[in-house]
Amino acid sequence: MAFKSKLLLVAFLLSVLFLSVYAASATQDPELKQCRHQCEHQQGFDSKQREQCEQRCDKYIKQKREEEKHRRKSEGGGSFYPISEIGRAQEEEEEFQGRQQQDQNPYFFEDEHFETRVQTEEGRFQLLQKFTERSALLRAIENYRIGFLVTKPHAFVAPSHFDADTVLFVFQGRPAVTIVRGEKRETHNLERGDLFRIPAGTPVYMVNRDENEKLFIVNFMKPVSVPGEYEAFYAAGGENPESFFKAFSPQVLQAALKTEMNKLERLFGQQRQGSITRASKEQIKKLSQQHGQGGSEGFWPFHGGQSSSDAFNLFSKHPSQANKFGRLFEADFNDLKQLQELNLLVSFANITQGAMVGPFFNSRATKISFVLDGEGYFEMACPHVSSTGRQEQQPQPQQRQKSSPRYQKISGNLRPGVVFVAPAGHPMTAIASRNSNLQIICFEVNAHDNIRVPLAGKKNVVSQFDKEAKELAFNVPAREVDRIFNNQDDEFFFEGPNEQPEHGRAYA
Amino acid sequence: MAFKSKLLLVAFLLSVLFLSVYAASATQDPELKQCRHQCEHQQGFDSKQREQCEQRCDKYIKQKREEEKHRRKSEGGGSFYPISEIGRAQEEEEEFQGRQQQDQNPYFFEDEHFETRVQTEEGRFQLLQKFTERSALLRAIENYRIGFLVTKPHAFVAPSHFDADTVLFVFQGRPAVTIVRGEKRETHNLERGDLFRIPAGTPVYMVNRDENEKLFIVNFMKPVSVPGEYEAFYAAGGENPESFFKAFSPQVLQAALKTEMNKLERLFGQQRQGSITRASKEQIKKLSQQHGQGGSEGFWPFHGGQSSSDAFNLFSKHPSQANKFGRLFEADFNDLKQLQELNLLVSFANITQGAMVGPFFNSRATKISFVLDGEGYFEMACPHVSSTGRQEQQPQPQQRQKSSPRYQKISGNLRPGVVFVAPAGHPMTAIASRNSNLQIICFEVNAHDNIRVPLAGKKNVVSQFDKEAKELAFNVPAREVDRIFNNQDDEFFFEGPNEQPEHGRAYA
Amino acid sequence: MAFKSKLLLVAFLLSVLFLSVYAASATQDPELKQCRHQCEHQQGFDSKQREQCEQRCDKYIKQKREEEKHRRKSEGGGSFYPISEIGRAQEEEEEFQGRQQQDQNPYFFEDEHFETRVQTEEGRFQLLQKFTERSALLRAIENYRIGFLVTKPHAFVAPSHFDADTVLFVFQGRPAVTIVRGEKRETHNLERGDLFRIPAGTPVYMVNRDENEKLFIVNFMKPVSVPGEYEAFYAAGGENPESFFKAFSPQVLQAALKTEMNKLERLFGQQRQGSITRASKEQIKKLSQQHGQGGSEGFWPFHGGQSSSDAFNLFSKHPSQANKFGRLFEADFNDLKQLQELNLLVSFANITQGAMVGPFFNSRATKISFVLDGEGYFEMACPHVSSTGRQEQQPQPQQRQKSSPRYQKISGNLRPGVVFVAPAGHPMTAIASRNSNLQIICFEVNAHDNIRVPLAGKKNVVSQFDKEAKELAFNVPAREVDRIFNNQDDEFFFEGPNEQPEHGRAYA
Repeated sequence: MAFKSKLLLVAFLLSVLFLSVYAASATQDPELKQCRHQCEHQQGFDSKQREQCEQRCDKYIKQKREEEKHRRKSEGGGSFYPISEIGRAQEEEEEFQGRQQQDQNPYFFEDEHFETRVQTEEGRFQLLQKFTERSALLRAIENYRIGFLVTKPHAFVAPSHFDADTVLFVFQGRPAVTIVRGEKRETHNLERGDLFRIPAGTPVYMVNRDENEKLFIVNFMKPVSVPGEYEAFYAAGGENPESFFKAFSPQVLQAALKTEMNKLERLFGQQRQGSITRASKEQIKKLSQQHGQGGSEGFWPFHGGQSSSDAFNLFSKHPSQANKFGRLFEADFNDLKQLQELNLLVSFANITQGAMVGPFFNSRATKISFVLDGEGYFEMACPHVSSTGRQEQQPQPQQRQKSSPRYQKISGNLRPGVVFVAPAGHPMTAIASRNSNLQIICFEVNAHDNIRVPLAGKKNVVSQFDKEAKELAFNVPAREVDRIFNNQDDEFFFEGPNEQPEHGRAYA
Repeated sequence: MAFKSKLLLVAFLLSVLFLSVYAASATQDPELKQCRHQCEHQQGFDSKQREQCEQRCDKYIKQKREEEKHRRKSEGGGSFYPISEIGRAQEEEEEFQGRQQQDQNPYFFEDEHFETRVQTEEGRFQLLQKFTERSALLRAIENYRIGFLVTKPHAFVAPSHFDADTVLFVFQGRPAVTIVRGEKRETHNLERGDLFRIPAGTPVYMVNRDENEKLFIVNFMKPVSVPGEYEAFYAAGGENPESFFKAFSPQVLQAALKTEMNKLERLFGQQRQGSITRASKEQIKKLSQQHGQGGSEGFWPFHGGQSSSDAFNLFSKHPSQANKFGRLFEADFNDLKQLQELNLLVSFANITQGAMVGPFFNSRATKISFVLDGEGYFEMACPHVSSTGRQEQQPQPQQRQKSSPRYQKISGNLRPGVVFVAPAGHPMTAIASRNSNLQIICFEVNAHDNIRVPLAGKKNVVSQFDKEAKELAFNVPAREVDRIFNNQDDEFFFEGPNEQPEHGRAYA
Repeated sequence: MAFKSKLLLVAFLLSVLFLSVYAASATQDPELKQCRHQCEHQQGFDSKQREQCEQRCDKYIKQKREEEKHRRKSEGGGSFYPISEIGRAQEEEEEFQGRQQQDQNPYFFEDEHFETRVQTEEGRFQLLQKFTERSALLRAIENYRIGFLVTKPHAFVAPSHFDADTVLFVFQGRPAVTIVRGEKRETHNLERGDLFRIPAGTPVYMVNRDENEKLFIVNFMKPVSVPGEYEAFYAAGGENPESFFKAFSPQVLQAALKTEMNKLERLFGQQRQGSITRASKEQIKKLSQQHGQGGSEGFWPFHGGQSSSDAFNLFSKHPSQANKFGRLFEADFNDLKQLQELNLLVSFANITQGAMVGPFFNSRATKISFVLDGEGYFEMACPHVSSTGRQEQQPQPQQRQKSSPRYQKISGNLRPGVVFVAPAGHPMTAIASRNSNLQIICFEVNAHDNIRVPLAGKKNVVSQFDKEAKELAFNVPAREVDRIFNNQDDEFFFEGPNEQPEHGRAYA
């Protein structure tokens, strides 16, 4: 009796202790402290893992703050934060919602999934999080990054080199891009629609020649140093951006540059406005004078590159698909041979308002789409994400006993700045709203030998099946299959649905 | 005194509490709940890791059930389950056995390591678990999968595409395989011994033309979407297999196919028998009519493929090794150029009853062997798996102090359906039982520039050493080395041992 | 009241229990036991992870012993042990120091980061730990290993094959290297400066022909079996080195070699001196007779290799950089075409005493440097390692808000046996002490299309910028930039600083 009561007592006390831990983890510094303490004392962790564990602690604290900031903005987007739920044990409901959304759609990215790498008065550079930070289902594109640069008219972007191969797409503005290779300097005056590739480690700077229009550039990057990580290195600069020269010891710098320290301190101390500043009309005029492009042989891969082949304008080419519902412009290995190295195909889709593209799938390529203008939504069929709303990287025996997987609808609302991913083999479609054309730039990774397989309209794959295959597969007379799959006589771009679907599955 | 008693009391109560946790983890749902709760509140986990943690919880529950099912079948194979031991804290002994077997031989796979992806009245498709689920020592083949398809005579396999490049080997039956690329349909009537490659994302369906013989096909797959994961996408179908069309919103489908919902619901609702069904004699006759193969140029890689080069029969070629003890048939890049893309060599070994193959090793290739017929056993020397029966991915300083690693014998009994792996450089041998020939299909990954190095028989490598090297290496007169290594005058296939060894090391 | 006291009591008791855990983890076997117990019962671990967890436990115990050994040697290097801190919870200070050093410089490796794979009277082979054991920032070179072989004059290294492609650099001694491919044996008499490539799985043995000079060879390896893991397989040998033949069952061996067991036991039992032994003058003379090299066509990649192209002497080529401050010898794909397969460039830098090399960076290659002779120090600017001394694989929002990353100085003292790594894009420099020339062998991974970008001296990249870019980037008149960057009129190698810097940042 006394014993039993004491047992209850202890049980109660233990739960008190338990709760107090979470109480602690609600306040900030203690939480971080506890998190790192746990990393510290986790048995069987090697130093690398502990290090990473601690980084996650810091990251979580940071992102929680970020998230709270977002909440204050009452965008409600906070629950999208991949990390945001940790420690919010008390908000079970909200957390569950959060994961629901996040897990059901690891293929969809919005503003809050971008981090600001550079921000000044004159412009900013935003970088999308690593794809695999979101979900292991994106391992196929783990080592690619995507971001965008926005600047005011007449902005100058300071010289730097990146540890990544980069492909630029100019959507707005008229940048003069200068790259330096060996003893040669090349300036390329780019226009809307231009694709331009900057090899890893190439010093580059640019200026927006346009006096009125802002500059908007989308960056596709493949890191060469730490897979999936991306860093910029500023040779010039001072306090802000900091020049990497400042990391070296004074003695070393003095010897290397044969210059006394006081001169160096002055040189590396004046720049304080950041890496995106404003250039004068006169400076822009000078910076836009093209030069050095003749000698670019042997600079690009396959050592015969003409400067004419350093850039390619997507809109200069006849669209590969075009009807009143939309147009598709594509650049392949022949158009810009630098794409071959990256095994990349770039395409620009302009979907007429109220129209749609697809459904179709890519046979081998994984398609990363960045919405540039307009609104709409996309849908994709996915076998990896089950109807429970949780991913199955590991197949589930029970479910597999069935004669086929079920397919989950992946969907999301599209607006400028949204990124969505369609892995190889996954059927997808995108629909433009009735109010505006939907303009999307697409980067298709693993493009070699890729084939786009249409699922509706002329050339749809189902119509290709043998009569008998149709009957056996659908278990209806073949003519019924044909009657349906031959109705749509347009190709690739179609008239869209009358009203936007409530987001449910096609069939209850 | 009172204090001490209270201390003992609390200690006792704590252990009670402790045990109760495991008590809980014996019953099912509570265990899952606790497991996921732990993932939830693990500090320093980012959402992806938590997600995966939770998946492991689910997986564990599922596999525990599976395992219990197996136990009921009293196959005793349960202890092979890679995951099966978790939470069986109480069964220390059994668990230890389990790991012993599993760890000492991560190169050996049996029935219970396959999952059933498709199962109907007419047939089934089984897929081997990811190699790295078993052991990190198989990272070299992490992104490859192997499986097999078995159907009754006259079975039809519904149209689908996969997110993986696939190579089929027909061991039994006479399949008519139809693939659709762009606007072209090709039908290939395959026979026993045929290799056939299906590029990722290619819609394919097949029928077993044979009225009496079942169909048995081995599938080698290289995923292109999520590395190491494999999914099938059914365009046709209805309830079962489900068509991926059903994942799209009704409004979207109606617009894409220009058809009212009721018609679509009918079309996608009739098929309920699953993805492997029975075809009529008439249907088979039609489905077997070859067509479209002439125009296959530009369809296969290297854009000059003749349909004649789409398939290759292993047995059509002169065996690369043949004597009364066995025969080896090999297909290389020249025989089926699609193999070059996959950097793959395929071989078929038929070891005469009572005979053996090897010992030998591959210089660069990792060899995945699937036993098709007969019985026997294999042995392999492995430096990664120590005599303690645990793997050392991390070398062990102490042990390394020795002048060389010790080699562990890896062995296993071979019977149809068993898969075993020999990594590059690992000496291996396989022995056929006295009752039946042993037939094995082998997929050698990373085959480019691979060389097979014989360790016995004519051309054995030891005989090639300089006289002085033999003396210094064996510390005996060279003639003694020669006397032994020149005894065996056969090549590759040899007369086997008189009796099967008890499974111990060669030397105590 | 009574309640409150009991609460305090229990709280106290719990902390006692808590501490007792760490008390336990101070003593050895209990610690291991607990560590493994924790792995055992970690929910949501699959068997592979548990396995690895347990391996880490063992590894930790082993390395702790190692470390204590080192401590006794009072080299103080113990704190460099990547794993050494675990469980040293009580020594918070020391541990913190440990991580400080380790984290701030994951690019720097010393003696204690090598393990001894082979050690005999006559010589030893040391292998550097996996780069990623040290830091995830080295993922780009995860699958490469580096090591070195040292032997006495007239030492013989027993026949073995490795599961890795290997490139040898002969720094000292005159090895006769014999490789066996198929039925052909080739002997290559190498000299100081020779590069020689041994394909994975090729049986090889060597002897140091020199009677007086020791042999010193640096090995660069790319594993083909388990990524990043490296194993040697001894065909010949007996007790020590153990022959892998001994892993097979007696019955199997007898059948394969057609020889009775007693003979085999004798053959595989005589060698006990280890894999590096002493050869007689006579044996060396025989082993040095070159043969078989004519017929090497089709043996090397690109199937046209002449034996002349199997080895290349770095010093036979005109230095690519040379002045009174140093000389650089480089071997590229044209010099030794086997390097192309490995996408590798090898260079040898001889920096005059008191002089320096760089600063410069590689556009795509990651450079692994091994110090062969002399002393000095290196410095590198790194954006990944923040000033807090902890790595950021995950970018930090707050910090990123700034207009640029800050760069951390990475530095270390160079002496023979030290390895340091410069990832692509990272500016670096190396300085020779005033007492001796600094000799370094460098392996540049991912060398295809790599460009070395000079940051000082003639051709420095900053001087290439447009006048306007200089003004905008530095915010000073362009002539001031030029005045500084044109001071240094030497190239690549420069006169070094007068005194070695205290290890701080260039600017407070």
